[in-house]
Amino acid sequence: MKLDFSSPFTERTPRVVNAAKLHRAKERKKAGRILVEGFNSVDAAISTGAATDLFVTQSAAERYADVVTAAGYLDVYVHAIDDKAAASLSETVTTPGIFAVCRPVLWTVGKALGRKPQLVTVPVETSEPGNAGTLMRVSDSMGADAVIFAGNTVDPQSNKAARASAGSLFHIPVAREPNIKQVLGQLRSAGLQILATAADGDVTLDQVDLAKPTAWLLGNEAHGLDDDLLNEADIRVSIPIRGRAESLNLATAAAICLYQSAQAQEAEE
Amino acid sequence: MKLDFSSPFTERTPRVVNAAKLHRAKERKKAGRILVEGFNSVDAAISTGAATDLFVTQSAAERYADVVTAAGYLDVYVHAIDDKAAASLSETVTTPGIFAVCRPVLWTVGKALGRKPQLVTVPVETSEPGNAGTLMRVSDSMGADAVIFAGNTVDPQSNKAARASAGSLFHIPVAREPNIKQVLGQLRSAGLQILATAADGDVTLDQVDLAKPTAWLLGNEAHGLDDDLLNEADIRVSIPIRGRAESLNLATAAAICLYQSAQAQEAEE
Repeated sequence: MKLDFSSPFTERTPRVVNAAKLHRAKERKKAGRILVEGFNSVDAAISTGAATDLFVTQSAAERYADVVTAAGYLDVYVHAIDDKAAASLSETVTTPGIFAVCRPVLWTVGKALGRKPQLVTVPVETSEPGNAGTLMRVSDSMGADAVIFAGNTVDPQSNKAARASAGSLFHIPVAREPNIKQVLGQLRSAGLQILATAADGDVTLDQVDLAKPTAWLLGNEAHGLDDDLLNEADIRVSIPIRGRAESLNLATAAAICLYQSAQAQEAEE
Repeated sequence: MKLDFSSPFTERTPRVVNAAKLHRAKERKKAGRILVEGFNSVDAAISTGAATDLFVTQSAAERYADVVTAAGYLDVYVHAIDDKAAASLSETVTTPGIFAVCRPVLWTVGKALGRKPQLVTVPVETSEPGNAGTLMRVSDSMGADAVIFAGNTVDPQSNKAARASAGSLFHIPVAREPNIKQVLGQLRSAGLQILATAADGDVTLDQVDLAKPTAWLLGNEAHGLDDDLLNEADIRVSIPIRGRAESLNLATAAAICLYQSAQAQEAEE
């Protein structure tokens, strides 16, 4: 497909203006659309059918010609934009110049868990979009069934979270539920053991039966999981810290727990 | 120790002006000093003897009274600063109001490796300070002996890298060497097997003998390790990707590799 760049959309074109508004959570909710940026996110949004509109600069259209072609085949509206329009749509310092407006992709908790989940990531009160994205990416990489953001969390569908997920927002079922108790009930009903990461756990990671269907509760970046929630978990698990560091950060702790779970479950199969 | 806040240093006080200059790598080199911010970094800098000067706002002095007291005992100059001075020293949006000027803490590669290293992290051409810091933190947590930043990397002593390291910059030997071939030679001389993370590895992580003394080469965030370097490694290792994600990010991949190595080495002891 050949795009016509003789009169591209500018930052004043209504479609661009409306898309740029989607940086704000309130506007995403109102419009029932989300905005993502960059090759990985846009490619995943198009290939999974979530994208409705693609916006590309001339240089991005050349660089990502395959994505533009795929969008054409998949009935995604493709719009040529100029650099100023790209800047208005972007949240990055040097924008890749490729954007997609998409239908929301969040699932309900029940749907995300499906019928027999084996491995589920449950970030609690995640406050940093980059971390939310990294958690989706590592969960997807480790073959988890779903990511359930519980409590008062950042929006996993924000551009920044989507970008950090490198496309995984579109690949793995993701849900968001403010009511943590309700989430815990649903995890239990789904037959999952609930493990919580804790600085002072009952046991260390190598002492848990990780072959069982498992939901991992992961605390907030700054203050971890609160005591109430730790008490609700079946087992409080510590990752052994060997050096002089006090703890791991959220994403690295999640990576280690999920990798160990995935390995144990695979060995069991 | 009671600090006098009746006439705190302002953003115009020469000591504050000079400390604020340390945000720039060139000034750090010229002054032979680095600047760190936040409780974890400052606490580690003071307790390890790296700090020469502590700067605190009134509210930070109350909140971190123990750190201020420790600084007094350890002959660190303690300076009361006002909020504008804190803003000029800070690189964060909401500054914690506590800063330390420190002697540089980088080691030579030889010294960092020591006599019989067991586990060494070797980030290659790391371009993001937050990643550099996270790699120091996870390496420290996993009991690694050293972190060697090889090639053209960000400065691991920048405020942002120090902050992401949560104090580990001061806890674990860290070196920086632009000449990658030289680093490889030193790793080999130290008796380390050289493992490289690769999307298409010779083997997967669970197939390697991780009990051996190991150096992990970790590629750049955007383009991984280049072919030359992959060929220099003893083994190219893939982390099994189970879902639809294409890869893990740098920090989560490092966390998994180092955790597995630390576990295998501990089991061997």
